[in-house]
Amino acid sequence: MELIHVELRQGQLPLYASFAPKQVMSRAMPALQETLRELYLDSFPECLKSADLGCSSGPNALLFLREMIDSIDAIRKKLNKTEPTFQIFLNDLFNNDFNNLIRSIPSFYEELRREKGGDFGPCFIAAMPGNFYGRLFLDHSLHFIHSSYSVHWRSQVSYEFGSPLNKGHIYLARITPKSVYEAYLDLFNRDMTVFLKSRSEELVLGGRMMFTMIGRDASVNFAPIYHRFLLTTNFLVSCLKGIIEEEKLDDCNMPFYLPTPEEVRYVIQKEGSFDITRFETFKVTWDAEMGDGDLQMRGKYAAATVRAVSESILTTHFGEEVMDGLFERFASKVSQYMKLHKGEYFNILVSVKNRWISTLMQSS
Amino acid sequence: MELIHVELRQGQLPLYASFAPKQVMSRAMPALQETLRELYLDSFPECLKSADLGCSSGPNALLFLREMIDSIDAIRKKLNKTEPTFQIFLNDLFNNDFNNLIRSIPSFYEELRREKGGDFGPCFIAAMPGNFYGRLFLDHSLHFIHSSYSVHWRSQVSYEFGSPLNKGHIYLARITPKSVYEAYLDLFNRDMTVFLKSRSEELVLGGRMMFTMIGRDASVNFAPIYHRFLLTTNFLVSCLKGIIEEEKLDDCNMPFYLPTPEEVRYVIQKEGSFDITRFETFKVTWDAEMGDGDLQMRGKYAAATVRAVSESILTTHFGEEVMDGLFERFASKVSQYMKLHKGEYFNILVSVKNRWISTLMQSS
Repeated sequence: MELIHVELRQGQLPLYASFAPKQVMSRAMPALQETLRELYLDSFPECLKSADLGCSSGPNALLFLREMIDSIDAIRKKLNKTEPTFQIFLNDLFNNDFNNLIRSIPSFYEELRREKGGDFGPCFIAAMPGNFYGRLFLDHSLHFIHSSYSVHWRSQVSYEFGSPLNKGHIYLARITPKSVYEAYLDLFNRDMTVFLKSRSEELVLGGRMMFTMIGRDASVNFAPIYHRFLLTTNFLVSCLKGIIEEEKLDDCNMPFYLPTPEEVRYVIQKEGSFDITRFETFKVTWDAEMGDGDLQMRGKYAAATVRAVSESILTTHFGEEVMDGLFERFASKVSQYMKLHKGEYFNILVSVKNRWISTLMQSS
Repeated sequence: MELIHVELRQGQLPLYASFAPKQVMSRAMPALQETLRELYLDSFPECLKSADLGCSSGPNALLFLREMIDSIDAIRKKLNKTEPTFQIFLNDLFNNDFNNLIRSIPSFYEELRREKGGDFGPCFIAAMPGNFYGRLFLDHSLHFIHSSYSVHWRSQVSYEFGSPLNKGHIYLARITPKSVYEAYLDLFNRDMTVFLKSRSEELVLGGRMMFTMIGRDASVNFAPIYHRFLLTTNFLVSCLKGIIEEEKLDDCNMPFYLPTPEEVRYVIQKEGSFDITRFETFKVTWDAEMGDGDLQMRGKYAAATVRAVSESILTTHFGEEVMDGLFERFASKVSQYMKLHKGEYFNILVSVKNRWISTLMQSS
């Protein structure tokens, strides 16, 4: 099997282009606070060195920083400690819009100064471009690493040239041959092993990492709501079939993999650098809880968020000219589905503690 | 006197938009090599943490990094040491084109890997946006700081509202009242004091800094070539006078100050954090040694480099519509001058060593 490299999409918040990250972040908040509290009870770094991997560049890119700073501010008040300083690295791929991100930093600093007082911090925010499936930072130089909705993106996409394994589909589907599923899982395992090993080398002993990703709910594998996220890619496929030649589908494989909780646990334990301190799953709706709003609008919103993250990949394969039509059909299909069902994404949240040194000591 | 903040122009390489930095860098190379050699003889950091302040975003932005890495590679070979790793921060203002800069990093990494071998480094290049007249990095976290052609830019521009001190001029000129000169010098002293204090807090004990800037040659103060760089601003003024209302000149004061070597020495010694280890002056021609080429072309080139750095300031004051005409006249004036004289900029190169800890110990 040949592997080709694809343009990665770290940090492009899948399906949650602009509003939903707030919902996801609010669901992840207690875990973030608890993770940071544990970090600060272990040892209180006077300067917290941290990184946000796959930060993207949209209006929500600095949201996490604010949550993190507020959490630490609350913890240090409770522990009666002085304010720490912050060094924060914002990471995404080289082709991310860093200008947009960097130009939002002055008002972020200004807001911090206004709300926390002039003596707060200082807080030094740097941009660290690069692929997180590899090393990004110096040895044992960080206390905390965060990544939201990025590690389900794969580093590559695999297919057999000339003989597509996944005929008529763009991601795993009910009829996908086992070998395709295994190729995706294998790539997931290899990517995550590199990811975990790299982060464990970059974190201090006892350093913490927390990440959220879209996964799939193995417990409902054979229910009608099987692979909810896959359902949206299946919808995309059926909408595409009306407007493109079907054989064009054979070359397109989406560069993500949505693991089950067990697959995530397995790779963390097998890689061996981290102890899992928190492992949660939760669901968010396709339309980010727009609730009882107009069904057509909810469909359009869900479609817009899917479009935001998949359009560049789909355009490469099927051409820009079909995109408007595709996503109109897609929005209508999503609306119809949501009339009868609750469209939901299944999320996995993991918090881990670096045991790099102890592993080293055991092996020496 | 009221002070207003202006959009800073750190890193916009004045007068050397694209070709001249190579010439300046080649003149500064021996000093860079010597500074790094001294740093490595004092102590050999296994990971060199460094920053380039006012890096800009043009094709030359990564030139210095390459020179630095090559120098250190040569030193460590001579000392028979293993290759160090590198953490490098590229700094410029928030409105710099960081996208352009960051997108040039992958080929830079690729070139390093190809030329130095796969085991070289690793080298982690981050972007650190912000104003260098203030703190940018954590306490004592860097070994080496470099800045090329940036610290002659001032943090502000000063004028008395309603009563311009420098009527009919955009920078210091022969007829400038002493009070205007003193206001510029005072601002230079205040800016440089903040700059030096910030850097000394960021560098480790014994850490090194090297910077180059355009200055003025006090030894020829009353000669016809008095204030060569000022000559180009005087040319700009005389060209402007033909195409704008003269009173418009009164509100425009260029936000740079070109100090004499003595003024630079004085502020470093007065601030007190650094020992001067190297202090040089050298000249480069307006047309970056285009030599005996067509005089008109040399004038156009010199004008283009001046335009690259001054256009945004001039446009704000005089409007975009006059720029083409202005720089045509300017190029012609420069050509005429170069027919009889050698147009040159006077440069100051300073290398310093951080004595922060010893200062602290003396005061305690």
